[in-house]
Amino acid sequence: MSNLKIIPLGGLGEIGKNMTVFEYGRDIIIIDCGMGFPDDDLYGVDYVIPDITYLRQNKEKIRGIVITHGHEDHIGAIPFLLPELDVPVFATPLSAGIIELRLEESDLLTNTQIFTKKVGDKFKLGAFEIEFINVNHSIADAVALAIKTPIGTVVHTGDFKIDLTPVKGEMIDLARFGELGNRGVLALLSDSTNVEKPGHTISELKVSEKFDELFKGCKKRIIVTTFASNIQRIQQIIRVAAKYGRKVAVNGRSMERMMAVACALEYMDIPEGTLIDIKDINSLPKDQICILSTGSQGERMSALYRMAFSEHKQIKIDYNDRVIISASAIPGNETTISKVIDALFQNGAEVIYDKHTDLHVSGHASQEELKIILSLVKPKFFIPVHGEYRMLYKHALLAKTMGVESTNTILADNGSVIDITKNSIKIEKLVKAGPVYVDGENVGEIDTSIINDRRKLAQNGIIVILLNVYSETKELVSDPDLFSKGFNCELESVEIKDEINRVIAESFASCKKRKILNPISMTEIIKTNLSGFIYKISRQSPIILLHINEI
Amino acid sequence: MSNLKIIPLGGLGEIGKNMTVFEYGRDIIIIDCGMGFPDDDLYGVDYVIPDITYLRQNKEKIRGIVITHGHEDHIGAIPFLLPELDVPVFATPLSAGIIELRLEESDLLTNTQIFTKKVGDKFKLGAFEIEFINVNHSIADAVALAIKTPIGTVVHTGDFKIDLTPVKGEMIDLARFGELGNRGVLALLSDSTNVEKPGHTISELKVSEKFDELFKGCKKRIIVTTFASNIQRIQQIIRVAAKYGRKVAVNGRSMERMMAVACALEYMDIPEGTLIDIKDINSLPKDQICILSTGSQGERMSALYRMAFSEHKQIKIDYNDRVIISASAIPGNETTISKVIDALFQNGAEVIYDKHTDLHVSGHASQEELKIILSLVKPKFFIPVHGEYRMLYKHALLAKTMGVESTNTILADNGSVIDITKNSIKIEKLVKAGPVYVDGENVGEIDTSIINDRRKLAQNGIIVILLNVYSETKELVSDPDLFSKGFNCELESVEIKDEINRVIAESFASCKKRKILNPISMTEIIKTNLSGFIYKISRQSPIILLHINEI
Repeated sequence: MSNLKIIPLGGLGEIGKNMTVFEYGRDIIIIDCGMGFPDDDLYGVDYVIPDITYLRQNKEKIRGIVITHGHEDHIGAIPFLLPELDVPVFATPLSAGIIELRLEESDLLTNTQIFTKKVGDKFKLGAFEIEFINVNHSIADAVALAIKTPIGTVVHTGDFKIDLTPVKGEMIDLARFGELGNRGVLALLSDSTNVEKPGHTISELKVSEKFDELFKGCKKRIIVTTFASNIQRIQQIIRVAAKYGRKVAVNGRSMERMMAVACALEYMDIPEGTLIDIKDINSLPKDQICILSTGSQGERMSALYRMAFSEHKQIKIDYNDRVIISASAIPGNETTISKVIDALFQNGAEVIYDKHTDLHVSGHASQEELKIILSLVKPKFFIPVHGEYRMLYKHALLAKTMGVESTNTILADNGSVIDITKNSIKIEKLVKAGPVYVDGENVGEIDTSIINDRRKLAQNGIIVILLNVYSETKELVSDPDLFSKGFNCELESVEIKDEINRVIAESFASCKKRKILNPISMTEIIKTNLSGFIYKISRQSPIILLHINEI
Repeated sequence: MSNLKIIPLGGLGEIGKNMTVFEYGRDIIIIDCGMGFPDDDLYGVDYVIPDITYLRQNKEKIRGIVITHGHEDHIGAIPFLLPELDVPVFATPLSAGIIELRLEESDLLTNTQIFTKKVGDKFKLGAFEIEFINVNHSIADAVALAIKTPIGTVVHTGDFKIDLTPVKGEMIDLARFGELGNRGVLALLSDSTNVEKPGHTISELKVSEKFDELFKGCKKRIIVTTFASNIQRIQQIIRVAAKYGRKVAVNGRSMERMMAVACALEYMDIPEGTLIDIKDINSLPKDQICILSTGSQGERMSALYRMAFSEHKQIKIDYNDRVIISASAIPGNETTISKVIDALFQNGAEVIYDKHTDLHVSGHASQEELKIILSLVKPKFFIPVHGEYRMLYKHALLAKTMGVESTNTILADNGSVIDITKNSIKIEKLVKAGPVYVDGENVGEIDTSIINDRRKLAQNGIIVILLNVYSETKELVSDPDLFSKGFNCELESVEIKDEINRVIAESFASCKKRKILNPISMTEIIKTNLSGFIYKISRQSPIILLHINEI
């Protein structure tokens, strides 16, 4: 009998967020295949995807990719990795629909096998039998996984919360978690995103009540922004708009496409005649219009951004507008969102965005919910996932209060190969799992030195110096040519140019005196002297690119 | 009789935060003179200071700078602006001490007149009589101002909260606010920072209680980080450390200097023998040590950062450490702080940082406190300040519920000249007030094009191309020389080089054919063609710097 191996592979900072690998004997399954978004200090990097070196080395073992739900951080890397891995994908209908959208955008759709599985379905992939269990989350059709292996069942919650009054769809199937727990669960992997929050995450129903309050009796035009993928939220907004006799115009491509998928799959239910085209909004009175818009994170060029900064063709914001921001800021976006809100206010709009109202609720379980899952599943071993190290640590403490021994809990890192038998759990070794950067057309080929150069360029710019030198005599032909980009100092001024020429001429002479005539060494010496001088006059350290052009 | 003019001048996004100007007839006083810290999109900018064009034009009218408290955003621009304005500064003793520290660092101390005024003191500056009123804030010796003018009294709260149980010093002098209100206040300028927070900001005493709980019976070494300027907080930590028999070592230059000033002025009271040198910490048992450290914002190279990433000479973090983060994240710093906390956890430390504990309280008044001030001062006119536009808007709504008519409230912008008579308030005109960027030695000389270049450099880097051309025949001497920095594409590969050479040669030939021989036009044409090609192969748009070197 083999040991079971579980390897969290992807996630920027967070552990096991974008991808987790299960391996047993000759079989591997991949749970989720998502992308991350880089911090500001990863200059120019567009996305971050999991490092699949380990999967590449074990390609023949892979039986498929199993998707828990359709958010970018769980599906976004599929278009990047499928061409190489070429394995079938298994997902619930809505997740499958969203994946198809992404593959279509990358022209990969026709070559991919996507199998749709419903909640409650069980299917075999090599040594594994997978069952989809309904959970609540900020996207419809999200599932947890019960993964039956030859040595026992492992439960992976995926992203989840316990919503006792979801607005659309069933509440999380707590009974099934309990049933599995009663039969014995070998290990639990559970979402640690909100482990720092005490209590219970608020139900989506609260948002619904708040919307009703904000629409009731309102005479203004109403503009609501939320995440394009939050189908349930969009459904609510449409329902309340229809209730109060408003037509709905959708603005923003990502939202339009997501709604088209959700409607086609009957995850949304839009009353006949409710939707109108954005071009037609000015033919109706203000109090009969609701505009659903992208831009809840203040994204530049999103529909809401363009409205705020008067760049929108059809929509001009004024005191007859009530703008509702139904989303919370993803860390890092606070400043841009603030700017958009300020601009809306300055145009006269009433903006409703307050953290202290119930305009948005989290999609992740807080402490009491995490305890409920632990109490139902009663796992022998516990692996907190989906969080930064400090969150996994807190989740482990929480599990301890629920009776999971510390020795039975593993705090893994991305790349940790967790080795599990019926009676033991340990980290066996580490495999390659660093994040892979996507920069334009380049996947994974950007190295730290390029990012470091970009950081320096961003801070102080670059000075380019061209020295024409006679190849035979090594004499300077003329004064150097100076160019700069992003460097903040008056290089054009005669005094500074004279000084630079002097530093170069002196360095040059000193090289010749010391018989250093190799251009590489000369370049280095001149550059060192010059950067000292530049720092002295400007307190800045631009990159200096110096070329000795022998003619 | 003249009109009173109030002009909010400085603040990045926030209105009237860093500087406000009062003008009456031939007299001007400046309230505060602080700096802001730039957003991430102001590449390479170190600080932002107020634009003093208006003050420069009215230099002979300026009677002095009046400081409300010693935080950087209220005093930090003094060293930049004093050389030019050369006017006396009026501040409370601790604020004056901190200003002296800053001036000393800039070698400006001997040339500056700093006058120390105590709480309750009144002093005349031209047409104005200024009175310092004690308020609570996250730095000691903070004051509000009652400014008596020939047409009435104006109250400026500065930054404040109402702390009924401050740990050190007196509570805010609510009685004086009430007294002024009863005698009639023409206008109130009030702090809007926390206007979005309902209720009442928690007292500093809560933090004290929490510290006691965390020190009591703790067997580990305790490391606490907080803001260097939060003298009261540091005082509390030292007091609780001494109570539980711990010696305190201070680590971080800014904190050491701030404490030296506070002690010299008797704002701190450190029991004899409590402080030890950081070098001596290893001679004591863990449970007799408390380390006070900078780095509460995760600053690179701060003491805490170096501890977390094992770069600290004297301090090695392990499971015998309890680290307490007694600060909240300033927006934009969340990610770096998370990384430091994670690294501390990974070294085995117990880190106490949770938002939901009482380890930090805000220094600004929440809604109920703002209402108390409005009810005491009962101003005729109201000018919300210290906040982004949306906050001023909310503060205006709050004032309305307290009986200040909308028509008597002014929502100003930086540069708005607010014109006040006994019976009227209006915005008269706008004066120059954009932020001034400080970048190394350059003050105000950085223009948008440099920041735009830096943004492009940060995203995709730069390609430098040198073309040697015979000046007479305009023939290429050889293949171009290519260099790049921060550009992510294999420029070294033979195929790409060949392609670039081809694009250049073709563009070159086409120019000659069209008789375009002027180097500037040729450069533009070649650059345009080349950037098209580079984008096609890389999906990136680096800056292209092309130089035609005629020889």
